[in-house]
Amino acid sequence: MSSTAGQVIKCKAAVAWEAGKPLVIEEVEVAPPQTNEVRVKILFTALCHSDGQTPLFPRIFGHEAGGIVESVGEGVTELKPGDHVLPIFTGECKECRHCKSEESNLCDLLRINTDRGVMLNDGKTRFTKNGQPIYHFLGTSTFSEYTVIHVGCLALINPAAPLDKVCVLSCGISTGLGASLNVAKPKKGQSVAVFGLGAVGLAACEGARIAGASRIIGVDLNPDPKKFGVTEFVNPKDHDKPVQQVIADMTDGGVDRAVECTGSVQAMISAFECVHDGWGVAVLVGVPNKEDAFKTHPLNFLSERTLKGTFFGNFKPRTDIPGVVEKYMNKELEVEKFITHSVPFSEINKSFDLMLQGKSIRCIMAMDA
Amino acid sequence: MSSTAGQVIKCKAAVAWEAGKPLVIEEVEVAPPQTNEVRVKILFTALCHSDGQTPLFPRIFGHEAGGIVESVGEGVTELKPGDHVLPIFTGECKECRHCKSEESNLCDLLRINTDRGVMLNDGKTRFTKNGQPIYHFLGTSTFSEYTVIHVGCLALINPAAPLDKVCVLSCGISTGLGASLNVAKPKKGQSVAVFGLGAVGLAACEGARIAGASRIIGVDLNPDPKKFGVTEFVNPKDHDKPVQQVIADMTDGGVDRAVECTGSVQAMISAFECVHDGWGVAVLVGVPNKEDAFKTHPLNFLSERTLKGTFFGNFKPRTDIPGVVEKYMNKELEVEKFITHSVPFSEINKSFDLMLQGKSIRCIMAMDA
Repeated sequence: MSSTAGQVIKCKAAVAWEAGKPLVIEEVEVAPPQTNEVRVKILFTALCHSDGQTPLFPRIFGHEAGGIVESVGEGVTELKPGDHVLPIFTGECKECRHCKSEESNLCDLLRINTDRGVMLNDGKTRFTKNGQPIYHFLGTSTFSEYTVIHVGCLALINPAAPLDKVCVLSCGISTGLGASLNVAKPKKGQSVAVFGLGAVGLAACEGARIAGASRIIGVDLNPDPKKFGVTEFVNPKDHDKPVQQVIADMTDGGVDRAVECTGSVQAMISAFECVHDGWGVAVLVGVPNKEDAFKTHPLNFLSERTLKGTFFGNFKPRTDIPGVVEKYMNKELEVEKFITHSVPFSEINKSFDLMLQGKSIRCIMAMDA
Repeated sequence: MSSTAGQVIKCKAAVAWEAGKPLVIEEVEVAPPQTNEVRVKILFTALCHSDGQTPLFPRIFGHEAGGIVESVGEGVTELKPGDHVLPIFTGECKECRHCKSEESNLCDLLRINTDRGVMLNDGKTRFTKNGQPIYHFLGTSTFSEYTVIHVGCLALINPAAPLDKVCVLSCGISTGLGASLNVAKPKKGQSVAVFGLGAVGLAACEGARIAGASRIIGVDLNPDPKKFGVTEFVNPKDHDKPVQQVIADMTDGGVDRAVECTGSVQAMISAFECVHDGWGVAVLVGVPNKEDAFKTHPLNFLSERTLKGTFFGNFKPRTDIPGVVEKYMNKELEVEKFITHSVPFSEINKSFDLMLQGKSIRCIMAMDA
């Protein structure tokens, strides 16, 4: 065990003290891991749009990251100090109905919970600042040099994998990749439309490319979309007719697969209605507003179209994410192209600006820089 | 060839002269089959709700039947006089994209068309009464002792199969059976909810039974539903809460599969929303009104539910229906229980009354009786 095992660690973390304000780099205390918990030294963290959407303060955000196990709590047998891990914002207990189902990754115990700010074991936080509790976020809180995470939310990965690259596989990139590879499952030579060319959508394009799709039609309102294997581009603003009609006209009746990554309910409807009758499959990935209603004519289903939704690309965090890292190691999956920026952890607010301005796909922060 | 080959045949048929009026048994002339057409001697016909919904008159309805090939037109190589066949209301040309797809049965050439009343080869009818053309229906028009059908709409079946039983496999029973076996695909031990316990829904229950479902929950407004392997029954009228909530409460969060056979859009929504998150699949079978909208919250998809629709149970008429008949011959599939009544063909209007009053599941008419 490391010399810090069992001790409180003092380290730097980016604390959100209140809504809408910049994060503040503070020295915080990180308590030792309890039963089924692991304390992880974070080496690299990225950020994504989910970070910061919360009413609970003070809080340490961050959920896309890579690190090394510092120490483990009671009952943890699958991980040991020194192991390389990716924290995942949703977990896999391996015991519940969902974990035992081949199809689901919606673990009953560790399913994503944006409201919970404490650890399951004792309902308390492991972070404090001068004795004041600081809440966790998504069970990961990777905007800290050290963090405590439930063992079910950690993927044990190949130690040869460069953490400054594969850290982006812990959230959005896997989400889009899995939506294509695990759920839409285009066959070799088929056509795929991807709605929304942010990080998730571009990862869905990467998944379609890996699956051997012959046409990858990117749909975005941004007139300067990233390429990433997209073979054709449609900007709905350039057309008088609905985008589903534009795509049907381009593809002799519809695409074989569609993946919706914007969260706009209108884009969801378009994505469904643009797939071919007889065999078309549309997959919803983007998260809608609470009030939205998906609405279509039932005959669109009866003519043998399928609509599915996915969460985290249907990957089971512990079981499947190590394999996604291997895809990168085997050069089957490209990751570098998603990493457009890097800033020191101390300049984390700049990283938020780049994201919110749409300038970065992923911006990596080295914790020691 | 039979002695009638190449000749006009005079025979009895039930003619619909105008909307909403009883059918009239008439002597009609049936012309010989043209290219890719087959003239079939119908031995037994049933009827279903689709018969009679049309603005085109005079017309000969009927599409659920069994018969024997009398003669074939040019280019027909797969069938010969004496072959036992089931006419199917939708066809399989074996050449188009849909026929070549493993997944689709929506043949581009011979897909169901309720409006067309003529044969494809020359745009004319093969039926006349004193020289006046009488329109075809669904390409089958089985309410006639002889009818002319495109070869792509005939399934060649085992001649040992009793036509007075297996004739019901040419429409509704296969539709429900295939919705379960080919589309919902419950795994052994899973739970299935079936909405609507008419012939199609009961056939979906039979499919669920064959697949090894452990619980088959029938949902119907009729307080005296047929049994057919249904293990539990829910009448939405008996509950204050929505039926999807009733079913979720019965099944610890939802059924594994649901099959909707009523065509009511509210039942479609309930069927979708009553399947379990993570792995639930709902299948739409019932045909809705033109103005209906399917409406649900997109999060119901994002929590990993799937919604599919099917047409004719995803069976390809020529390729797959002979195998359904074999399932009956192997005693895997029960057919007798669907046949609740029989009347002579001359009393066909009585058969309509039984159906419209909800008294029959299927009523068989022997053409020679």
